[in-house]
Amino acid sequence: MQALVDSARRKESPLVVGLDPAPSRLPKELQHLPSAEAVQVFCRGILEAVEPHAAAVKLQAAFFERLGTPGMEVYGTLISDAASLGLPAIADVKRGDIGPVAAAYAEAHLAVYGASCVTVNPFMGEDAVIPFLEVARRLGRGGGVFVLVATSNPSAERFQGATAPPLFEVAARLVAELGGGGSGGDYPDAGAVVGATRPEVGRRVRELLPGALFLVPGYGAQGGGAAGIRPLLDSSGAGVLVNSSRAVIYAHETSQTDYRKAAGEAAKDARDELRSAGVRPA
Amino acid sequence: MQALVDSARRKESPLVVGLDPAPSRLPKELQHLPSAEAVQVFCRGILEAVEPHAAAVKLQAAFFERLGTPGMEVYGTLISDAASLGLPAIADVKRGDIGPVAAAYAEAHLAVYGASCVTVNPFMGEDAVIPFLEVARRLGRGGGVFVLVATSNPSAERFQGATAPPLFEVAARLVAELGGGGSGGDYPDAGAVVGATRPEVGRRVRELLPGALFLVPGYGAQGGGAAGIRPLLDSSGAGVLVNSSRAVIYAHETSQTDYRKAAGEAAKDARDELRSAGVRPA
Repeated sequence: MQALVDSARRKESPLVVGLDPAPSRLPKELQHLPSAEAVQVFCRGILEAVEPHAAAVKLQAAFFERLGTPGMEVYGTLISDAASLGLPAIADVKRGDIGPVAAAYAEAHLAVYGASCVTVNPFMGEDAVIPFLEVARRLGRGGGVFVLVATSNPSAERFQGATAPPLFEVAARLVAELGGGGSGGDYPDAGAVVGATRPEVGRRVRELLPGALFLVPGYGAQGGGAAGIRPLLDSSGAGVLVNSSRAVIYAHETSQTDYRKAAGEAAKDARDELRSAGVRPA
Repeated sequence: MQALVDSARRKESPLVVGLDPAPSRLPKELQHLPSAEAVQVFCRGILEAVEPHAAAVKLQAAFFERLGTPGMEVYGTLISDAASLGLPAIADVKRGDIGPVAAAYAEAHLAVYGASCVTVNPFMGEDAVIPFLEVARRLGRGGGVFVLVATSNPSAERFQGATAPPLFEVAARLVAELGGGGSGGDYPDAGAVVGATRPEVGRRVRELLPGALFLVPGYGAQGGGAAGIRPLLDSSGAGVLVNSSRAVIYAHETSQTDYRKAAGEAAKDARDELRSAGVRPA
């Protein structure tokens, strides 16, 4: 996690920009290109535009996988482009498998494609998380793992709340057990994905994980505002990286300006809003 | 699911052969090739050898993803090779995301790469499953989705049993709710992944899903034997497809014969053992 934390402090920004490139939503001037190429040009433009305002970028693997092998080429190129710009990449892959299978996914996204961090699904228990931590530690680049704990869509809330204790508590305890090791940095290298839409859930997860770094989706287009972040903060007002995807990368749809300029301004606004709400950059 | 069911009946076999190709375990005569090419030659040989005995093949996506874009090329080629041999492919991807992200994963594996079925992780609730069903239905090729319900590794058992009701029951109910629609075939197109290692869990999942098709891992190398399958059968002695991966594809490691011959024999033995145990082919 230290690579993300250092970047957040250097940029004085807790903002993560999510790259969720749907070909149909790309700007008109890129629509004549083959899909994978259009996505690459678009995302490269977004990376350069948001770089001054964002701590990191998060690549939604599905949108690249959707484009077949040319999409996976672009995925790798963008992770490396982001690194060249000083932006660590979070591979939002939500992989959830065990043992050698989990190790193969970890090698793929952290070593072969070169992301700094990954998101992981804990449905199969700690065996689904540990191989990712092992690969991140072996690589020694300050990477880490964000385990899905409390996601923010309605059906996730139903599923994760259908039991006693609720599933998000079981997942949070799993992260707490794994979080003792790690890089010796300011945060354990096992963090949590925690949505910003239910304050009472967020508060409870923070109680269970007082020292963990949270990756917070659901900011911007998904409806969670800066006020929704507050219950997730640690005792020093930090401990969160807040992701905004569509509200930043598709800002051109409502602004009538160049997509890069629109995305850069949207990223700056999001960062400023988070700062004004008292969110400290890690 | 109907494509799998038809194939199982035609072959009189409930066996699925899992392709989990780890480059270090390939036969010596392939070790001089670049990894992706070695994996392709090896898996193509396995496909031809097991085709007479298996209802379907299951590709473990991680082992292809691990090899970068050349690995994903091989993944697509093998799915198409399997189809040419009359073997429907199950893409064991265990993806778990929602809305447009889940739809993108579904398009990738069912449409772009062309698998017949996929495995899906339900941690984010029904929003994580429905987009896969929608794509499978739109394609109209008799495909479907296997939702992780009760997996068989120890840490999954701990995680999935840590709540009341246990998580596997919540997941089974989710499958039951989704299973009403579908292709109008013998089984709903929402099935379940259910391990063969805990009879009491298997029996309970079958109670909750009396008419569903189960994909059963944990047979062979993972320790579940044919007796472990019995609690999972439906009232007609069918309703399961049983996966064996390592015990088939790495049979050459203990037999000193050609890897294709060894795999073909291991597949035939596994099918015969399942038949002798009274498992009907769907």
